[in-house]
Amino acid sequence: MEIDIIIWLDYLGTMVFAISGVLTAGTKRLDLFGAMFIGVVTAIGGGTTRDLLLGVTPVTWLQGYGYLIAIFSGFAVTLIFKKFVARMRRTLFLFDTIGIGVFTIIGLEKALNLGVNPAVAVIMGMTSAVVGGVIRDTLTNDLPLIFHKEIYATACITGALFYLFFNWLNFPPALNELLTVGIIIAIRLLSIKFNLVIPVFKTPES
Amino acid sequence: MEIDIIIWLDYLGTMVFAISGVLTAGTKRLDLFGAMFIGVVTAIGGGTTRDLLLGVTPVTWLQGYGYLIAIFSGFAVTLIFKKFVARMRRTLFLFDTIGIGVFTIIGLEKALNLGVNPAVAVIMGMTSAVVGGVIRDTLTNDLPLIFHKEIYATACITGALFYLFFNWLNFPPALNELLTVGIIIAIRLLSIKFNLVIPVFKTPES
Amino acid sequence: MEIDIIIWLDYLGTMVFAISGVLTAGTKRLDLFGAMFIGVVTAIGGGTTRDLLLGVTPVTWLQGYGYLIAIFSGFAVTLIFKKFVARMRRTLFLFDTIGIGVFTIIGLEKALNLGVNPAVAVIMGMTSAVVGGVIRDTLTNDLPLIFHKEIYATACITGALFYLFFNWLNFPPALNELLTVGIIIAIRLLSIKFNLVIPVFKTPES
Repeated sequence: MEIDIIIWLDYLGTMVFAISGVLTAGTKRLDLFGAMFIGVVTAIGGGTTRDLLLGVTPVTWLQGYGYLIAIFSGFAVTLIFKKFVARMRRTLFLFDTIGIGVFTIIGLEKALNLGVNPAVAVIMGMTSAVVGGVIRDTLTNDLPLIFHKEIYATACITGALFYLFFNWLNFPPALNELLTVGIIIAIRLLSIKFNLVIPVFKTPES
Repeated sequence: MEIDIIIWLDYLGTMVFAISGVLTAGTKRLDLFGAMFIGVVTAIGGGTTRDLLLGVTPVTWLQGYGYLIAIFSGFAVTLIFKKFVARMRRTLFLFDTIGIGVFTIIGLEKALNLGVNPAVAVIMGMTSAVVGGVIRDTLTNDLPLIFHKEIYATACITGALFYLFFNWLNFPPALNELLTVGIIIAIRLLSIKFNLVIPVFKTPES
Repeated sequence: MEIDIIIWLDYLGTMVFAISGVLTAGTKRLDLFGAMFIGVVTAIGGGTTRDLLLGVTPVTWLQGYGYLIAIFSGFAVTLIFKKFVARMRRTLFLFDTIGIGVFTIIGLEKALNLGVNPAVAVIMGMTSAVVGGVIRDTLTNDLPLIFHKEIYATACITGALFYLFFNWLNFPPALNELLTVGIIIAIRLLSIKFNLVIPVFKTPES
């Protein structure tokens, strides 16, 4: 991470993911503890999975107060301004999109720094961004959203591939990070605007 | 762990969690292997998650025969005295409550010994106690019980906070451990007696 | 691993598991990305769980291109020859059975080499073979197949116990591996042929 803004966007993304987890849980008749539990795993599930697979332990969010503060700030905002936050979904969506962009880059860079090959690093970037949502949906007994709705993980993968390409072109890291986050955000927003989806895969009857 | 009784209570808790896993599975038309698989993950899921997050590997239950013996003793008792065990649910409930108290302390102490900050250590204590049940319920396609019923994880968190407080007051460890387990048990029993629940969190319509 | 064929069978098993994951996902109205995600976790879930529990990180499939190539070859074959693959289920079943045999041996040997006790090593062998399928079914909201249908995990456990026995008899490793895979395949095929199942465990009413 070459630019400090990435660190702050990481905390912002974590906070937004925690809020989205709580809001999802709030449609399931969970108690407040359950909702917060879902909020935490949504926020840290992706990064935790990446750290465990790569062998980075204690996992990142355990190494300080930063992520916990981000998460509990998200909870506080959601509980105090409940109606306001629920009405803000469109804005949250934007922050969520920034979040997956930033998480992808952080995961990708972390993996590259640990010396794994580029294909694996791309997967680790995508993992950081999407696995929190997969765990959220699995714990609340839903089919994971990213498996059947919207361009989401594929935006992360595409962004990560561009990052590697810009890196190979020797772009300075800060520029590369900005461009990559921008590409991920653009793909997601355009796919929503033009209602692009990935085709359903259907196993033929045998 | 300053007192040997903690070790034995840990094995007892593991055995009781294995039994509770098998009994839950036994309401789902799983085969005997499936029921035992659920029993194992219920018993070791919390401690395993804690160990993985903290980076303690091979995870604790792989480092000897103790936990396996506790778990398979639980299976043997359940299979041989099936009706008796099913009728003993009230007693099992008491042991389960002792179990979460002990698991909380063990997780908390382990985390503190590894040098993480107190907030993280509290979360690791709670994780040790409750995540086994969360995995059990997720694998059997139920909404995790602790997300919508009874005071459970919050009892663990409260106990863990008291532990830190007593520690700060320089209570001897053995006394602290006994007091903390007592507090967790008391909160859980009182919450059941007085039918206390955590309020449901409901996301407002937007 | 004493014989090179084990390595190739490992890749073949991984490919077949990836195909089986995609085909399962294809009955759930997932999009293509979701189907491939399920394919990946089916293929690498068991070995990843084993590696994490034992503390082998970065987990095996991150340490090179081999497993990724096996998985994506499986995807390519499935997408290009969709109808053919769906009709090939019987052949796939055979390869799947070879797969669980090979995965069991690899997990068992890896665990023994890391110095855990034999009981734990048997569990790690079984884990390598079956946990991918458990994660696949949990993510797609099904009760895991191995908990209520067919002799599957128990074939792996039995094979692993024979491996330890043959090892104790000082059989050469290559012979031992071949015999063990053969035993696992035989148990599975015979159990299907004679319609053997593990009895359901039912918790008595209390």
